[in-house]
Amino acid sequence: MTRTHEEVSYSPEGKRDALTPTSAAQGVEDALKILEGRWKLLILFHLFGGKVLRFSDLERAIPAISQKMLTQQLRQMEVDGIVRRIVHHQVPPKVEYCLTDWGQSLCPALDALLKWAALREMNSDPPAEGG
Amino acid sequence: MTRTHEEVSYSPEGKRDALTPTSAAQGVEDALKILEGRWKLLILFHLFGGKVLRFSDLERAIPAISQKMLTQQLRQMEVDGIVRRIVHHQVPPKVEYCLTDWGQSLCPALDALLKWAALREMNSDPPAEGG
Repeated sequence: MTRTHEEVSYSPEGKRDALTPTSAAQGVEDALKILEGRWKLLILFHLFGGKVLRFSDLERAIPAISQKMLTQQLRQMEVDGIVRRIVHHQVPPKVEYCLTDWGQSLCPALDALLKWAALREMNSDPPAEGG
Repeated sequence: MTRTHEEVSYSPEGKRDALTPTSAAQGVEDALKILEGRWKLLILFHLFGGKVLRFSDLERAIPAISQKMLTQQLRQMEVDGIVRRIVHHQVPPKVEYCLTDWGQSLCPALDALLKWAALREMNSDPPAEGG
């Protein structure tokens, strides 16, 4: 039995044949769902650029987050495939966090969003009145 | 006293000197807030590409949305500067909706998010174990 869920072959290089407004909106929503969570964006921006940080580094970088919450957010990001947890088997064990390639590849997209937000002031169209 | 909390000059294009992880995350969150709302992404994708649609066109394109909700979402998007409402003074009056330049310029950012989501399968890093 063939399954063809996922025929949105949104191809990065220009075709995007099967992409309808509905599937595109759904795709963006699904992507954004991965970023939901009070601290995920901040954790991401701390790890962008190939940084490798220990749990305590992240705690220090984000003082407002509780240990429990940081653990939870990191675990979710790990499950989602954004964050990689590196366990060094030594005594005492050392655990570090970095982004996966896929997590790192989120950078241009967030960058595009920031650029877009920055354009806001320049593009304040007044409400238009037609004919 | 100098504060040097993380001068992460996260700068793809060079400038953006003052961007810290905190301000970048906040910027992305602010941008995403504009897109929140059950139907906004879908409305956006219906209007991308310079489309000019009447209220009834949008109703037809998104059958699941109620009139009240469509009105509300469009109004919010208008207030946020994404959608432009064009009133043609004729009898009966004709009202059309399109994206502002700024709304249209959201396209590359959403596109980048879709591209990122599409990369997911290709980039499933296995959980790493270090030395």
